[in-house]
Amino acid sequence: MAEVRNKQVVLKNFVVGFPKESDMDIVEGTITLKVPEDSSDVLLKNLYLSCDPYMRLLMTKEEDLSLGVVTYTLHSPLTGNGVSEVVESRDPDYEKGDLVYGMTKWEEYSLIPSSQILFKIVHTDVPLSYYTGILGMPGLTAYGGFFDVSSPKKGDNVFVSAAAGAVGQLVGQFAKLSGCYVVGSAGSKEKVDLLKNKLGFDEAFNYKEEPDLNAALKRYFREGIDIYFENVGGKTLDTVLPNMRLHGRIPVCGMISQYNLTQPEGVTNLAHLIFKRVKMEGFNVNDFCHLFPKFLEFALPLIREGKVVYVEDIVEGLENAPAALVGLYTGANVGKQVVVVAHE
Amino acid sequence: MAEVRNKQVVLKNFVVGFPKESDMDIVEGTITLKVPEDSSDVLLKNLYLSCDPYMRLLMTKEEDLSLGVVTYTLHSPLTGNGVSEVVESRDPDYEKGDLVYGMTKWEEYSLIPSSQILFKIVHTDVPLSYYTGILGMPGLTAYGGFFDVSSPKKGDNVFVSAAAGAVGQLVGQFAKLSGCYVVGSAGSKEKVDLLKNKLGFDEAFNYKEEPDLNAALKRYFREGIDIYFENVGGKTLDTVLPNMRLHGRIPVCGMISQYNLTQPEGVTNLAHLIFKRVKMEGFNVNDFCHLFPKFLEFALPLIREGKVVYVEDIVEGLENAPAALVGLYTGANVGKQVVVVAHE
Repeated sequence: MAEVRNKQVVLKNFVVGFPKESDMDIVEGTITLKVPEDSSDVLLKNLYLSCDPYMRLLMTKEEDLSLGVVTYTLHSPLTGNGVSEVVESRDPDYEKGDLVYGMTKWEEYSLIPSSQILFKIVHTDVPLSYYTGILGMPGLTAYGGFFDVSSPKKGDNVFVSAAAGAVGQLVGQFAKLSGCYVVGSAGSKEKVDLLKNKLGFDEAFNYKEEPDLNAALKRYFREGIDIYFENVGGKTLDTVLPNMRLHGRIPVCGMISQYNLTQPEGVTNLAHLIFKRVKMEGFNVNDFCHLFPKFLEFALPLIREGKVVYVEDIVEGLENAPAALVGLYTGANVGKQVVVVAHE
Repeated sequence: MAEVRNKQVVLKNFVVGFPKESDMDIVEGTITLKVPEDSSDVLLKNLYLSCDPYMRLLMTKEEDLSLGVVTYTLHSPLTGNGVSEVVESRDPDYEKGDLVYGMTKWEEYSLIPSSQILFKIVHTDVPLSYYTGILGMPGLTAYGGFFDVSSPKKGDNVFVSAAAGAVGQLVGQFAKLSGCYVVGSAGSKEKVDLLKNKLGFDEAFNYKEEPDLNAALKRYFREGIDIYFENVGGKTLDTVLPNMRLHGRIPVCGMISQYNLTQPEGVTNLAHLIFKRVKMEGFNVNDFCHLFPKFLEFALPLIREGKVVYVEDIVEGLENAPAALVGLYTGANVGKQVVVVAHE
């Protein structure tokens, strides 16, 4: 039975503050390419791994997080969503050669319970890596968060933070498809150019070059904001609140600016939720899993017809995965951050 | 034509920080008891005036508030909801002797546009003062905020802050009628006793005597909070957030602890909105005005059958109105604060 090398990215120590590459280790393990006979597990060859902001939370010591979620285990591979090829399966629903998307581990080969697979990839006329982004959890997050949580109407004024990210770039495009006016903020000139010239945002600005975010918001939203798609939290949220319009909606997708702070920034303008009767709602893609088939039906034709585009930041090799993940929190990535472990 | 004395409570100066009695003046004006012939105004004799937390906001200089709402005018009477008797009317919908509830002024007699009247009082077998509370805006606020915004289900765990106040005491009773478990916080032993022994809360505590609010919440909500009816804001909200349960709701009715602060307290735990997929929604009773008839139908039998009780803090005389209003912000009132201007 073939025992092969199995390179892994493991957590070396729990993280306080911003994560560093040195918080992770590249370990050369081995694995037997065989599913134990008494299991219904699936052996996967991992192809594309997704770097997602929530992963930072799982790098925190469980007691410090006190969220009742299972954080990463020290000296074990990180987990995350990815696109993989089935090497062997003892679950009759999957067979060798199937391409699947779901929760896997940051290593070359993974033995996982088949229940962790979200779906078999059927449509391969689009880039496989898209299943970590526009056709995977980030896509469904944007779809559910925008259409379901924020109830957009034609003509709504939409503001998206972290707008060039995996989710933000889609929210902006979905907003345009819905007849909204949409402005995005991002952290570099390159990203702002992308938003305006490739992703179809009406306006975009580099928040790092705006000494007064409130003035920037007033410039782009003279009549206020109907939907603020929240990806960053903290001071940005605090500045947005007084700029919300009557009956505005704030779908809360993430607060990436806060995850690395030992003391999050205080938000002082929440009384504007009352003054403007604003709904602010946290959500999680897991609440939308039932929408996945409907979402793929919606998204695939848009991709094929070029009506929605997707910007990816693809890094080659598992050994470069720690740097790619760490880069999420400094905004180093331009578009969805993907790690290629192996080409199909 | 009779010209009579018209005592008024006027705003002497705009308020910064906590309001003081000396921010208001008692002025002895006069008024002609006659509606001008070319108007459709109504002349009211004011009977009961309502002291409401939002009034503090209208005592702020408009530029400082920057909410686009019309604040009070210096040296003019405050405005607010009240129960009044029609003295003369040029609107055919009202006639002398009608009892009405609506927006009036803090004075003995008010000449107002009839559009400011919310409704004619039909049911007088209940205390007239109730129309400033349980049968008026506070009642409708509790009704709409609890049933409409927070979608209660039997068995939900409900936490109410400012629970002995005009709205909070009703939310707790509505929650019990809905089969919820309900805990209230208030600022004195007397109020806590009321909550437990008269208003039917399952539990209540004096927040001033809890050195660790988080520990108190964990004591009363071992499995977390489904609905937090928010009346106070600031640190209370910040402590509640990590105690919310999956898919919890936070109807935001008020943030009275913040209205007098020049710098509101920062709320740092908003990321829990994502972790627990919580909906936090600001609302305003004006959004529920269409529910008023339905609400009265709901509330009147409950009052008559003693299934809902209402605690009022009634002060006699317009000259005592400034102290009564100021007392709201230190929690001096026990129950709904009402000022009697004249008995019917």
